[in-house]
Amino acid sequence: MKDVQSEQDTRNVPIDRVGISGISWPIQVLDRESGFQDTVAEVSLSVALPKDYRGTHMSRFIEVLAAQERRVTLANMEGLLSMLCERQKADESHAEFEFPYFITKAAPVSALKGRLRYDVRFDSSLIRGKFDVVTELTAPIQTLCPCSKEISDFGAHNQRAHAVIAVRMNAMVWVEELAEIADMCASAPIYSILKREDEKAVTERAYTNPRFVEDCVRELALKLDKEDRIDWFRVSVTSHESIHNHDAFASVERSKR
Amino acid sequence: MKDVQSEQDTRNVPIDRVGISGISWPIQVLDRESGFQDTVAEVSLSVALPKDYRGTHMSRFIEVLAAQERRVTLANMEGLLSMLCERQKADESHAEFEFPYFITKAAPVSALKGRLRYDVRFDSSLIRGKFDVVTELTAPIQTLCPCSKEISDFGAHNQRAHAVIAVRMNAMVWVEELAEIADMCASAPIYSILKREDEKAVTERAYTNPRFVEDCVRELALKLDKEDRIDWFRVSVTSHESIHNHDAFASVERSKR
Amino acid sequence: MKDVQSEQDTRNVPIDRVGISGISWPIQVLDRESGFQDTVAEVSLSVALPKDYRGTHMSRFIEVLAAQERRVTLANMEGLLSMLCERQKADESHAEFEFPYFITKAAPVSALKGRLRYDVRFDSSLIRGKFDVVTELTAPIQTLCPCSKEISDFGAHNQRAHAVIAVRMNAMVWVEELAEIADMCASAPIYSILKREDEKAVTERAYTNPRFVEDCVRELALKLDKEDRIDWFRVSVTSHESIHNHDAFASVERSKR
Amino acid sequence: MKDVQSEQDTRNVPIDRVGISGISWPIQVLDRESGFQDTVAEVSLSVALPKDYRGTHMSRFIEVLAAQERRVTLANMEGLLSMLCERQKADESHAEFEFPYFITKAAPVSALKGRLRYDVRFDSSLIRGKFDVVTELTAPIQTLCPCSKEISDFGAHNQRAHAVIAVRMNAMVWVEELAEIADMCASAPIYSILKREDEKAVTERAYTNPRFVEDCVRELALKLDKEDRIDWFRVSVTSHESIHNHDAFASVERSKR
Repeated sequence: MKDVQSEQDTRNVPIDRVGISGISWPIQVLDRESGFQDTVAEVSLSVALPKDYRGTHMSRFIEVLAAQERRVTLANMEGLLSMLCERQKADESHAEFEFPYFITKAAPVSALKGRLRYDVRFDSSLIRGKFDVVTELTAPIQTLCPCSKEISDFGAHNQRAHAVIAVRMNAMVWVEELAEIADMCASAPIYSILKREDEKAVTERAYTNPRFVEDCVRELALKLDKEDRIDWFRVSVTSHESIHNHDAFASVERSKR
Repeated sequence: MKDVQSEQDTRNVPIDRVGISGISWPIQVLDRESGFQDTVAEVSLSVALPKDYRGTHMSRFIEVLAAQERRVTLANMEGLLSMLCERQKADESHAEFEFPYFITKAAPVSALKGRLRYDVRFDSSLIRGKFDVVTELTAPIQTLCPCSKEISDFGAHNQRAHAVIAVRMNAMVWVEELAEIADMCASAPIYSILKREDEKAVTERAYTNPRFVEDCVRELALKLDKEDRIDWFRVSVTSHESIHNHDAFASVERSKR
Repeated sequence: MKDVQSEQDTRNVPIDRVGISGISWPIQVLDRESGFQDTVAEVSLSVALPKDYRGTHMSRFIEVLAAQERRVTLANMEGLLSMLCERQKADESHAEFEFPYFITKAAPVSALKGRLRYDVRFDSSLIRGKFDVVTELTAPIQTLCPCSKEISDFGAHNQRAHAVIAVRMNAMVWVEELAEIADMCASAPIYSILKREDEKAVTERAYTNPRFVEDCVRELALKLDKEDRIDWFRVSVTSHESIHNHDAFASVERSKR
Repeated sequence: MKDVQSEQDTRNVPIDRVGISGISWPIQVLDRESGFQDTVAEVSLSVALPKDYRGTHMSRFIEVLAAQERRVTLANMEGLLSMLCERQKADESHAEFEFPYFITKAAPVSALKGRLRYDVRFDSSLIRGKFDVVTELTAPIQTLCPCSKEISDFGAHNQRAHAVIAVRMNAMVWVEELAEIADMCASAPIYSILKREDEKAVTERAYTNPRFVEDCVRELALKLDKEDRIDWFRVSVTSHESIHNHDAFASVERSKR
């Protein structure tokens, strides 16, 4: 049976990335509390294709994915990328995994525990033997507007917001740690279960701790700057303004090297 | 050239709806202030197919759509549905149009004007000559939690919410009127431009006017109940809780006939 | 601490549904092959609220959800709905769970196994003691156009499509069985891993088995009609036409009672 | 009334971007055939914020947007960015507009005309006086698999795909021209209205013109490379494989300077 993909190509155009995207796959990821957590990822896998080959063999991407036995961690990501390079005879490979991740949080007064959904993304590459991975956490938080509080006789507009923290590490930082940093930089954390005594505490905490998105990203930048296990970060906070039908956002990127 | 769709079908299964969906189309709709407004709709058109025919001619749906000269109003919807029945030799047709619609609102103190996006949907049918259309408005509003205000020493959590108002009319009701009803039933309206004096006014209005989603839908139901031009309504309010990563919602449906 | 939700309401408007939506939650569902499968659901829970109460206690919905110990099956759905009625003092409750579900399929020639993502939805209610649940499977399939094949000298346009099969059962029907029915009614099934010999088989099967969306829903209707464990069904097929930027769809609903 | 945003900030963290996102706004864009086209854009506007200021005034973004009188073109983008810098006292501003854009195409045989939806995005910045804009077109096309055609006795799998063409220009290139380039690089173009004679032509064209995503991006790269009005491009093609539930993609980026 003819192998069309392996035909020689004479157009002289190397391809930066060729692969598969939009594939949904059940995976297990590391969980600081319980060892492993089952989730469902959206996956993209690709390689660089030299100018001489007409195509790549798409089924091999799925075979490499299936060979992981569902476990996807920062520790085995380099192995997956190596296998992609080897199976596709490429000197550059990329892998992206994006998945919901649940962290159990205790309410501030009742201490009732509930799972809260975060979103995590690993964006990794192996380029001529050099491995790189960016870990990104999207965390739901609350912001309360300092201007609205200052100028109003009572009340202050507040809203759900999202902090996105992307980091390159030189030593393990748990996503649970990034989630805690997100909470510290917000007007108040967000929870899945709150009884009335908790709701009172969260409401008052937000009101006594007003933050613009500008404040939130600055606080995030200061915290990540001090953390020696992190070499590079990019943070953004997007606030779903309760008085508007649009969002406010701010972002900061910094490399320490 | 053979007409496969017109072949006789012997499986004895009439089809409730067959047609096209997910088609994007530029349209003009009625605007209370300026006569007409240009927008882009997502459209679905379908007919009932009797058991004896194998298929329908999908290109005719687009031809009927193109024949509208872009103008889509409650007034010409019945004509479009008639043309669908005629072209497809069907005794039942359906048409759905969903599109962004902008209403210019003045800020409460500065009176600065800004466009605010709403979403409108027409869901219409012509069944053996009987015409029906539901007009649905999705309006962004603000809710402020009565419980949070009551139990907290200061502040109250509030958030962006969405009211969805679907109605069957016996006389023209403008979507601008439905938008005004949505604003009246919320803790506070939402605007695109607010200067500081406006932000103070909106913050204080929300704080003095706390509303659960339950309160909002009840107020909506009372207002729509009193409106003689409306024969049937279904309302819901979904509040993007600022202290949670999930939403609270409530809905009421009522027919007056 | 005052209980605002429990205040008496004098507006005389009963609320059809009040609850939470858009909550993401890790669950375990039944898997025909391996007993249980871990996945992540989007959940909505609600109750009817009598006219006399101002509000419902939203945190109780999460408490009932958390009490399930993550296991969500057709068998324990009625218990969850009962618990909702009891905790919220309501005579009507609703629960919706929507989640990705993976079925391992063997390629038609190489027999290589790969996981394929489906989407499942349980839409259930308990109304004055009467339990009802609709199970809905969204299955990716392939359609190949009979008209295009007939009129063209060679080739035929084909595309990814989705079958949606919703059923009410009187005895257990596995979603794996519904997925098999979807495959039988398509031009060809869809797989995650296909080697070249498989790709040849799938391409030829689709070409020898051309189906309009109208054909697919009729075949689905005939198969479900014959299945005694199913009392009611609603099927639709939506084909992402490769020659257009819009979809073709057809739908049939039938109750056997 | 106190101006909290203008307070001095001592945290010593400059912010890369601060602004608004997710705002929907009606605009008019240039149309090669008819002069102007009305559409609805999703807009993001932002500026760099020096370390000394606590916040930016979010309402000014909307005021600058409202001042454009709805007309958004490559020609007036620099003026908009200048006004943003001036109003926000910033030395760097960014503006993104993403909107549906309709091109009227004639079917290949019947010559019937129908509108086809494309998506366009302007991503622009003014950094210390230096203006830059990337124009990006997302075009629906059809791909037919060369491998499937070669190895199968009859037929070949084909599917809807999307080409994304992003360019930096030194002289005006119409998005209509980019759409024509996308069509030339595909197995076949896509249309909104096709009568049977057209469907035959499109089916046969795709079958005689099989293309991997790798082929498509190489053809795109060759065409854009030869075009002197284009200084830089990034192209990708994503094919919604009809035999899988995932996509295949390829991308190439190249600067000619």
